[in-house]
Amino acid sequence: MLIQRYEIFLKTSARTDMIDLTGQVQEKLDKSEITNGILLVFVPGATASLTTIEYESGVLNDLARAIERLAPEGINYEHDLRWGDGNGYSHVRAALLKPSLSVPVIDGRLTLGTWQQIVLLDFDNRPRERRILIQVIGEGN
Amino acid sequence: MLIQRYEIFLKTSARTDMIDLTGQVQEKLDKSEITNGILLVFVPGATASLTTIEYESGVLNDLARAIERLAPEGINYEHDLRWGDGNGYSHVRAALLKPSLSVPVIDGRLTLGTWQQIVLLDFDNRPRERRILIQVIGEGN
Amino acid sequence: MLIQRYEIFLKTSARTDMIDLTGQVQEKLDKSEITNGILLVFVPGATASLTTIEYESGVLNDLARAIERLAPEGINYEHDLRWGDGNGYSHVRAALLKPSLSVPVIDGRLTLGTWQQIVLLDFDNRPRERRILIQVIGEGN
Repeated sequence: MLIQRYEIFLKTSARTDMIDLTGQVQEKLDKSEITNGILLVFVPGATASLTTIEYESGVLNDLARAIERLAPEGINYEHDLRWGDGNGYSHVRAALLKPSLSVPVIDGRLTLGTWQQIVLLDFDNRPRERRILIQVIGEGN
Repeated sequence: MLIQRYEIFLKTSARTDMIDLTGQVQEKLDKSEITNGILLVFVPGATASLTTIEYESGVLNDLARAIERLAPEGINYEHDLRWGDGNGYSHVRAALLKPSLSVPVIDGRLTLGTWQQIVLLDFDNRPRERRILIQVIGEGN
Repeated sequence: MLIQRYEIFLKTSARTDMIDLTGQVQEKLDKSEITNGILLVFVPGATASLTTIEYESGVLNDLARAIERLAPEGINYEHDLRWGDGNGYSHVRAALLKPSLSVPVIDGRLTLGTWQQIVLLDFDNRPRERRILIQVIGEGN
């Protein structure tokens, strides 16, 4: 049994920036030489999340609209009254969507569907430099 | 340390079909002979999710109604305008609810509560054949 | 490769009680002597969830309000009509937010952001005694 870990660094834009991580995650998985296991992706921080979605601009906009209904940007947040960051809605969105995603690894591949990508959702109200953590546990050939 | 993987194949109906997987998942866990570890359940595809809930028709209907408020079927989705599948709402629901669920294994059992079952939520607007993936990592006796 | 498991027992108050578990989870991780791996936190039961958020009362109230919009306490739930527990909304909230959270472990630390804590959300409508399960898999020094 092996365990390997990796980091991805990237810059995000403000306001529900959605970035497809699938290619970079698969690259790290290739390096790990783990063919059968579990891959965990995690974003440290309180204003971003990870999920899967078809990375197609139409449905990304649809998701952004659903998230805006869930935790609208324009309403009052106690967090903003106290801290003045103006990103209370970002914190709430990230808590609802959570910072982690686990994907099985079979034959050295992420077991995603054809139209299913791993996507970072950065909810913050300003550009951020994000560090994405990847842990792979499993066995090699 | 051992790792074992399994698949469950099943047919779903359209529109937030909810299927109790607990018995089948426990069966696979029994086969694995892993008594202490982590079990990951994952559904490949962009229109289905996994969660836990009491598998009782009243609360399943309540959950379906909450999901309908979250991403209503009857509003416009850009995904549908572009691709014409009519399942934009299914994609949004699946992205919000996510495709994976991790459960601890202790003494060879899923550590679910008495009224807590593992449930597949298929949000697609047509019947689907689903493949559910299970990875178990841990130690045996 | 090692696997270690732990339990945390705690009492919760009714109605979206939010409890910071970070310190207790890190304590268990310290005991495990696992420095590189994956830590899974899980709450058995159908009316509680785990997520991460900045543990600051303003944003906790903001999250509670978002969850109230998602699955309001004051509407009718079929679960309540059938079972009379009055906690249909708690079940729906827990199914939407899910009972598990996975966090990478690096150098013996949870890889949380500075303002990101592991938080139990107990949605039930009465005080509960909760058992939180922790599984850590990985390697030591």
